[in-house]
Amino acid sequence: METVAIVGLGLVGGSFALALRKAGFDGEIFGVSSPPAIEAGLRRGAVSRGVDLAEAAAKADLIYLAQPVDRILMTIERLGPLVPRGCLVTDAGSTKMAIVKKAQEQLPPGQFLGGHPLAGKEQRGVEAADADLFSGRPYVLTPNDTLTVDTKSFKDWLGRIGAQVIEMSAETHDGTVALTSHVPQVLSTALALTLGRQRNDQLTTVFGPGLMDMTRLALSDAEVWAGILESNKANVQAGLDCVISSLHEIRNAVGRPELLNVFQSASTFAERLRKLPFKS
Amino acid sequence: METVAIVGLGLVGGSFALALRKAGFDGEIFGVSSPPAIEAGLRRGAVSRGVDLAEAAAKADLIYLAQPVDRILMTIERLGPLVPRGCLVTDAGSTKMAIVKKAQEQLPPGQFLGGHPLAGKEQRGVEAADADLFSGRPYVLTPNDTLTVDTKSFKDWLGRIGAQVIEMSAETHDGTVALTSHVPQVLSTALALTLGRQRNDQLTTVFGPGLMDMTRLALSDAEVWAGILESNKANVQAGLDCVISSLHEIRNAVGRPELLNVFQSASTFAERLRKLPFKS
Repeated sequence: METVAIVGLGLVGGSFALALRKAGFDGEIFGVSSPPAIEAGLRRGAVSRGVDLAEAAAKADLIYLAQPVDRILMTIERLGPLVPRGCLVTDAGSTKMAIVKKAQEQLPPGQFLGGHPLAGKEQRGVEAADADLFSGRPYVLTPNDTLTVDTKSFKDWLGRIGAQVIEMSAETHDGTVALTSHVPQVLSTALALTLGRQRNDQLTTVFGPGLMDMTRLALSDAEVWAGILESNKANVQAGLDCVISSLHEIRNAVGRPELLNVFQSASTFAERLRKLPFKS
Repeated sequence: METVAIVGLGLVGGSFALALRKAGFDGEIFGVSSPPAIEAGLRRGAVSRGVDLAEAAAKADLIYLAQPVDRILMTIERLGPLVPRGCLVTDAGSTKMAIVKKAQEQLPPGQFLGGHPLAGKEQRGVEAADADLFSGRPYVLTPNDTLTVDTKSFKDWLGRIGAQVIEMSAETHDGTVALTSHVPQVLSTALALTLGRQRNDQLTTVFGPGLMDMTRLALSDAEVWAGILESNKANVQAGLDCVISSLHEIRNAVGRPELLNVFQSASTFAERLRKLPFKS
């Protein structure tokens, strides 16, 4: 891996570039992004040059797609005729099934490896990029038998930037993040939506730190999330149905002894999450 | 206000005592609590002596009930015959209607002032008590026309410990916290309950920081919350019905343009919460 092109120079793309640099990568890193993002990426030392997609595809041996899901789907269509043999295309999109399917249809066979770093923070853009964003965090890869290009060098670099690589199928990934990421996002949005519709001025006065936790995800970008949820619709809807059913169960257990068991089961799971070897 | 008795020496009771000391209160502070809590409270310098409820009632001019809601209801029954004229009884319970009603039935008239500090942290117990817990945070009082004892001295001390006092009816308080505190708690518990029931080992591997935010409240104490929810059942159930309806709305908007409006409304409310003059 000698020349990397990062398509979409935001928080994730910029952090990947900074992480490579910090880990000692001394090849060229191109950026394919809007002029202001390229300018900020140059200022941060994330990229050495802004290029267009055709030049990126011609010169890079790793193309790293770090856009929102719906934009990645469009970029893959454009990349199809541009990608030379031997070049590895990977992505950092939040869902995998739709992206892997699009890559199978549009890219030369065996050159795409789906990826998803489970890392992030509230701020957006390359200005907020952080060389340690991936360190100690899970990084899912969804390899399949058809891969023909070498992926070892890319995986080695993921290790050097501190990511905890986990391999699974795109289907398992999407079913899992529906529950661990997409349903939590919808719950936060539903809570903020519900409160925002009430006619009660005290709602923005009488609250504790818990409401801040529970509405933080509701600040997320609407367009990014529309793309994520649409690309994982069936899993998300099934997950929401399970949570709605749990909500009915708790609603009807208020004032009854069963409520204690429900709270204790939930607490046990929340504690399990906190005993894991990942940074949180 | 010269002698204070704190009933229930946990995070809130201990923090109130430490905050009074830090603000210059030099009267006696008694603790009414379990022997280990009293011992810890003495070690932290929160209380000067452990006493029983009868001695506390006989000697204090402020009785501060800092137990869980269901325990406060029991303490008020026991306090009824013990409270002398002129003594102010107040509480820090998470709901107010049931407590105010119980105080009206059991205590001498005009001596109870309901209260609820919207402050807290994850840790429990007087060991985690913090003299700055109330500083910059809302502190609801639910005064009513029947008050005969002087409350000015107590309110002055609330100001000195940095609490932002807001007065409202017990009904308004409970309707509000149902949405800002109790429904968020149930959402977090329902999420952790749902995930804990899945047969998918990856759920505790493939997740990002958002799941930590959304399951933090699920760590809360089951018995404390059983009492809170039971004492505010109708409001909580109505609030949950609204959120469930929002969840159905979002579920059915996945893949449709309406989803953007929903996310934007939610985000606007979440931003409003973050522009308020309270500490979060």
